[in-house]
Amino acid sequence: MVNGYDGSRAAELPAATRELIARRDRALGGAYRLFYDQPVSFVMGSGVYLYDADGNAYLDAYNNVPSVGHSHPHVTETVAKQLGTLNTHTRYLAEPLVAYAERLLATHTIGSVTGNAEAQAMFTCTGSEANDLALRIARHYTGATGVIVTANAYHGVTAALAEISPSLGPGVPLGSHVRVVPAPAPGVNFTAAVAWAISDLERHGLRLAAFLADSLFSSDGVLPDPAGFLAPVIETVHAAGGLYIADEVQSGFGRTGTHMWGYQRHGIAPDIVTMGKPMGNGLPIAGLAARPDVIEAFGRQARYFNTFGGNPVCVAAASAVLDVLEAEGLPGNATATGGYLKEAATRLADLSPVLGDVRGAGLYLGIDVITPGTAGEPSGKLAAAIVNGMRERRVLISATGPHGNVLKVRPPLPFAREHADQFLTALQETVEAVH
Amino acid sequence: MVNGYDGSRAAELPAATRELIARRDRALGGAYRLFYDQPVSFVMGSGVYLYDADGNAYLDAYNNVPSVGHSHPHVTETVAKQLGTLNTHTRYLAEPLVAYAERLLATHTIGSVTGNAEAQAMFTCTGSEANDLALRIARHYTGATGVIVTANAYHGVTAALAEISPSLGPGVPLGSHVRVVPAPAPGVNFTAAVAWAISDLERHGLRLAAFLADSLFSSDGVLPDPAGFLAPVIETVHAAGGLYIADEVQSGFGRTGTHMWGYQRHGIAPDIVTMGKPMGNGLPIAGLAARPDVIEAFGRQARYFNTFGGNPVCVAAASAVLDVLEAEGLPGNATATGGYLKEAATRLADLSPVLGDVRGAGLYLGIDVITPGTAGEPSGKLAAAIVNGMRERRVLISATGPHGNVLKVRPPLPFAREHADQFLTALQETVEAVH
Repeated sequence: MVNGYDGSRAAELPAATRELIARRDRALGGAYRLFYDQPVSFVMGSGVYLYDADGNAYLDAYNNVPSVGHSHPHVTETVAKQLGTLNTHTRYLAEPLVAYAERLLATHTIGSVTGNAEAQAMFTCTGSEANDLALRIARHYTGATGVIVTANAYHGVTAALAEISPSLGPGVPLGSHVRVVPAPAPGVNFTAAVAWAISDLERHGLRLAAFLADSLFSSDGVLPDPAGFLAPVIETVHAAGGLYIADEVQSGFGRTGTHMWGYQRHGIAPDIVTMGKPMGNGLPIAGLAARPDVIEAFGRQARYFNTFGGNPVCVAAASAVLDVLEAEGLPGNATATGGYLKEAATRLADLSPVLGDVRGAGLYLGIDVITPGTAGEPSGKLAAAIVNGMRERRVLISATGPHGNVLKVRPPLPFAREHADQFLTALQETVEAVH
Repeated sequence: MVNGYDGSRAAELPAATRELIARRDRALGGAYRLFYDQPVSFVMGSGVYLYDADGNAYLDAYNNVPSVGHSHPHVTETVAKQLGTLNTHTRYLAEPLVAYAERLLATHTIGSVTGNAEAQAMFTCTGSEANDLALRIARHYTGATGVIVTANAYHGVTAALAEISPSLGPGVPLGSHVRVVPAPAPGVNFTAAVAWAISDLERHGLRLAAFLADSLFSSDGVLPDPAGFLAPVIETVHAAGGLYIADEVQSGFGRTGTHMWGYQRHGIAPDIVTMGKPMGNGLPIAGLAARPDVIEAFGRQARYFNTFGGNPVCVAAASAVLDVLEAEGLPGNATATGGYLKEAATRLADLSPVLGDVRGAGLYLGIDVITPGTAGEPSGKLAAAIVNGMRERRVLISATGPHGNVLKVRPPLPFAREHADQFLTALQETVEAVH
């Protein structure tokens, strides 16, 4: 795994850390991974900082879940109040759930392709559950099973999603109904690749249920440009009778700055949109929005009850997140600080032999790490050194992409210019140190 | 769906309720269902009571999620404190997660069949995610795909679980690798049925990955007796190379009174145990515990990261639940009140032509509703009338079983004798009124 702890430097760790890792290895299943050569432990979070037990502040340029900032008081207070009042489920009638669904749906542009813009929502606890449900809905609607994803896609951890998530690696086989297309990088005719995958499915007697894509192609290395390149893809998918599922778990809730949702940067209207990570600022809430005619077949044939999905406490958290996004103008800040960060990182990359292309939208940046002296050859090894070097300088990032060489920078949205400067100073020091 | 609102009595509802239902139908996908002929809405919960907007108290004899009681102050305070301090994820090192895993594992008796008793834990957000992960683990370990479940089993809502959950109805097809056995009712040789299903799988070229069962067979109609009948089943499953997965989402965390886990009533040591609903008293946390040799293959071939799974806030809630279970002696109360309730309900059933068999363990009761004058013919219609009649008397229950005729009684665990008496009085009045 990119940025995974492998124990090779365990001898350098404090004894207490080594002991805790040993207890952890005994008590937790081996599929768990820690970050960093030297794992880090926090006791407190506030705004864009995390603090260790010695009171050291780490600048968080990585975590997109606490999107409105760590331990945001409005979220904490709203959740605590609701938790002390009432927590039930969706089989009792509740106005706040309906009101939140209406508020969320008002931010979307779904299904205008078919002239049917009144979307409907369903709630789950995790992005995985949302994508899994979206697949079930797509299969009921289309009567088909074929799925197309990108080469290093990640869509979740359920059995049905693991088999459409090539980034989980060769130990986790893809399904026979799944086709993989190259990521939309320069030189790739992405629409043609999707069309080819559709015809290949059909040659195998399968039809397309859904094309599923993270609107920022995060695990493929952060590929946002040029905005609009997804427009012909959705047409191709629709022509084959398939649905376009926009996975907004990474790109949603104002992260890209200019738009509430990543798909809106591309000017498209997906059939189903899935949401997750930042939705409740860390409280487990996720969900989907879909064309009502798409969702209808599923509702007729199946009932859906997710015990905790859409419960009053998680809905209160999600409402509080929308409150803060609006009140603090966080999407606007994502545009401003994100633009500043991208420009400065590009200047830094121009001067550094180890940094290559810088891409991004709002507060989601991908910075290529390359082997010096080559024409941009990806270096996962140097990227890992930079990620660990940044951790030593108390700045949290990670890496992504098929070669693990793309620095992944996606801080909480209250990230201000001073935080960007702190990040840039640490990055400059680190790249100078590793090369 | 059993106890589902179908709108047939919408005209009797207050205008505000009708309007809210209309808004809900527009905003939420059609797979959602409401309870009762006349849906109910709550604004507050405390202990074993829920309150509507007019201040009416409803005795909650149904909800097993708020297991230590609605809005329990210790849970609320613990969660609020953690939420205001730190909420991250399992890729940073955290002692409380390890400590909770150790505390949870200490309550289990897993894998002693193979002499390997040191179980390991993994955390998810929902029982569905836990069962889905258990299936993935079982398939990696056994290299097989076959699954055996009971006739009206329900194990969750992911794509992989929907196809092993016959209770979701004919609109949701079972997988071709799934075999269904009759529920373990009187007259059924359950072990022989499992053995037959194994041989049928093998005749189709499939091997058994897992036998999966709710230790109380809740959706099959609540079938707890005689304790111990599962012992030969686990031997049969092991002899075929399969794993025994105990689904403790319904029966776990002291609900059965005499034991922390439903499988322990049967004196068996499963290979994997899945947990959910009451684990965080309504905060979304769930997970599994498994033999380390079973979990090992999965950890070698796959990584597992559940963004919110095992996060500090949900783990704090789960720890608080264990605190309260111990401090308030709730499993003991489940035994005492549950025993009282079962005895009194049995006396009531002996006198009533519409009530049949009464079954239960601790505070999980199933009461058969039958057509009067028959030899116990199930009546889903009369059961629905009783459930709705209880709601009119402000006592919450529901119904279950393949015929929808088994009253499902599983209150929060602080249910005391006075609450049992209130329940019994309402039940007596209701059965007299419906017949």
